Amino acid sequence: MISIHNEPQPTDLGDVRVANRAVVLRHVRLHAPCSRADIAARTGLNKATVSSLVAELITQRLVRETGLTENRVGRPATMLVLDGEPYAALGLQIGADELVAVAIDLGGNRLLTWRRAFATTTVSPTETLRALTALTRRAIGRVTATGRTVQGLTVGVPGLVDPAGAVPLATALGWRDVPVAAELRAALRDPGFAVGVDSVANLAALAEQRHGAYAGITDLVHLTGGLTVGAGIVAAGRLLRGGRGFAGEIGHLPIDPAGPPCACGARGCLTALVGLPAVVRRLLPDAEADGPVVDYLPELARIVALARHDDPTVLSGLAETGRQLGRGVAVLTDLLNPEAVVVGDHFAALAPWLLPAARSELAARAHVPGAGGCRLEASTLDAAAALGGATAALATVEAGRLPVR
Amino acid sequence: MISIHNEPQPTDLGDVRVANRAVVLRHVRLHAPCSRADIAARTGLNKATVSSLVAELITQRLVRETGLTENRVGRPATMLVLDGEPYAALGLQIGADELVAVAIDLGGNRLLTWRRAFATTTVSPTETLRALTALTRRAIGRVTATGRTVQGLTVGVPGLVDPAGAVPLATALGWRDVPVAAELRAALRDPGFAVGVDSVANLAALAEQRHGAYAGITDLVHLTGGLTVGAGIVAAGRLLRGGRGFAGEIGHLPIDPAGPPCACGARGCLTALVGLPAVVRRLLPDAEADGPVVDYLPELARIVALARHDDPTVLSGLAETGRQLGRGVAVLTDLLNPEAVVVGDHFAALAPWLLPAARSELAARAHVPGAGGCRLEASTLDAAAALGGATAALATVEAGRLPVR
Repeated sequence: MISIHNEPQPTDLGDVRVANRAVVLRHVRLHAPCSRADIAARTGLNKATVSSLVAELITQRLVRETGLTENRVGRPATMLVLDGEPYAALGLQIGADELVAVAIDLGGNRLLTWRRAFATTTVSPTETLRALTALTRRAIGRVTATGRTVQGLTVGVPGLVDPAGAVPLATALGWRDVPVAAELRAALRDPGFAVGVDSVANLAALAEQRHGAYAGITDLVHLTGGLTVGAGIVAAGRLLRGGRGFAGEIGHLPIDPAGPPCACGARGCLTALVGLPAVVRRLLPDAEADGPVVDYLPELARIVALARHDDPTVLSGLAETGRQLGRGVAVLTDLLNPEAVVVGDHFAALAPWLLPAARSELAARAHVPGAGGCRLEASTLDAAAALGGATAALATVEAGRLPVR
Repeated sequence: MISIHNEPQPTDLGDVRVANRAVVLRHVRLHAPCSRADIAARTGLNKATVSSLVAELITQRLVRETGLTENRVGRPATMLVLDGEPYAALGLQIGADELVAVAIDLGGNRLLTWRRAFATTTVSPTETLRALTALTRRAIGRVTATGRTVQGLTVGVPGLVDPAGAVPLATALGWRDVPVAAELRAALRDPGFAVGVDSVANLAALAEQRHGAYAGITDLVHLTGGLTVGAGIVAAGRLLRGGRGFAGEIGHLPIDPAGPPCACGARGCLTALVGLPAVVRRLLPDAEADGPVVDYLPELARIVALARHDDPTVLSGLAETGRQLGRGVAVLTDLLNPEAVVVGDHFAALAPWLLPAARSELAARAHVPGAGGCRLEASTLDAAAALGGATAALATVEAGRLPVR
């Protein structure tokens, strides 16, 4: 098999040190406690280089000595673990009915997970960003009060995000052309760290790849649910973004032209069949008796309760929803051959009843043998997109750049 | 926007030299004639490094001095161009009705393009590989007779290719589990260069990215036609392969559940609507009067002739085919946000009549604004997959490794 190579980049000794710093840091993250000799043996770097890099990483408080020695043949060795305690990053998530903040340290330990109910769709984007700024300030305050320095933050939005961090379209929020990154940076008065914006689907996929049950696999898709359905695609270990950063729009995949009408004007799009409003409409025909549903979470809880009590109508409706989800996943599988498709949000909440039918449909519909080895699973992460946002904000440090002090 | 990084790799001075060799080689390929000073200025490498690398590249006959000097302020400079004349690579392509061989030199100049009519579907895979070996030997003979050294070869197959170069499934050829790479290597008696196998869709996408009208863009899809439809996906400058190398199976994308039956058992798959047999069946209802069509190329020529004479039935049938193609491209566009989708084979032959309708449908069906900027165009390359195979076989030299002498 052949790879097309990206443009080769000129390399100098500074780049080499950055790259090797990243190698050592990654080795410690994955294999701690480990000794300098372990690092040299496992990475192929020579011992003098490893010693020099470790000394610098200790000075920077990215790595620390535990003083422990492992039982081993030969001389006892000083063991190293990731420190990174002085460094943190934030992930924010704008949902239709809540704002979420997560902070983690460099070791991936959660420092806080805050959810604030907020009816985003009933107020202007400006008001939402004002609330988000307030939440962000409080989170920064909490993190810095413990002596940590924030290295960056990333906001997840359920919609399209352009390379400048603006949101041309977020149907689930009713947003068009909102310059999220620029407004948040201004509101935080240029905070001295990077402020990024990305789609919740991309950030959730990043969180899965780093912290989820399938952490470390190189080809996966995360499907976000709720009012709309989105895909975050990791291919060969990298987020697939496309030419303008809009990749992952799976919500209007045509599944059943005879299906219910979609907000987009077509019929039977994936969102119109398996999005949370469609599921509520199918399983709880009485839900709209008193007018349109505004808050879907109580309805989702009702569906879960009925499914737990083996309500036959709800069970058969969930199986039908699962089959439609499986048809969408089969298209993803044939096109992208992921090792895993991980579903979040209401798909995860309903997974025990959705996934058996979805997996059968995937096996029947995918055209690559054995669905290309693709596993279809529910996410086990809490606030995946916000966690992914915080993870993304640590990328420069993990790539070997020295942290903001 | 944030990238997930692949695993950082340890770097040493040898790697640095390889990487910088690739940088210089690429600069000369894209900007020749250029001077050593130009290279230093444009790549950021220092002049001593550039001089040392250029000296080595000249010794290796990868670069040569032209002796020309450009008009410029200051001292005249010796100009450099890509040499690479001593180095060649081969691409082979196994089609349902032909075998193709292409050879290029390192500069991308075609040394030969051979097509041999061969009814692959009527003989065993072993017989086909025997014919392919004979064709390959003759091509190697032709190339080496001119004093060139073959650096590698890559075979394109219209089907699934696994990482070992075996073909688990190629519907268009009627193949299952054929170890193409192993058999060809054995038949060529371990030729001392790399023998690779890839899908024709992947290789055609690589050819487009390097030699096509959209050369250099980082996100594109090439759709291959003929008996089946396949997608080669380039994302962020790299071929997207997926976990087992099976990505790009677009032939059974469900487009119209009320459409004609597909060989897979479903109805209205993309192949069943816009594959060459479906197009012939739709536009030339008399074609099957004397039994099943075996050779589709004369039928394709008849369709082109009728379209040129404005036959109303053929024109409306092509417009309908174009709309169905456009629906498939809209799915690709929403999911992958490519900058261009380039269609080859019978889609390219019929492009003047297919693409206007396909573009309208794409604009109407894609959900990202302006179809995410995606252009839908016909390939202008001859024997794209074989050309891509030869290009792929030069990848190691282009990545800065020294050539096989």
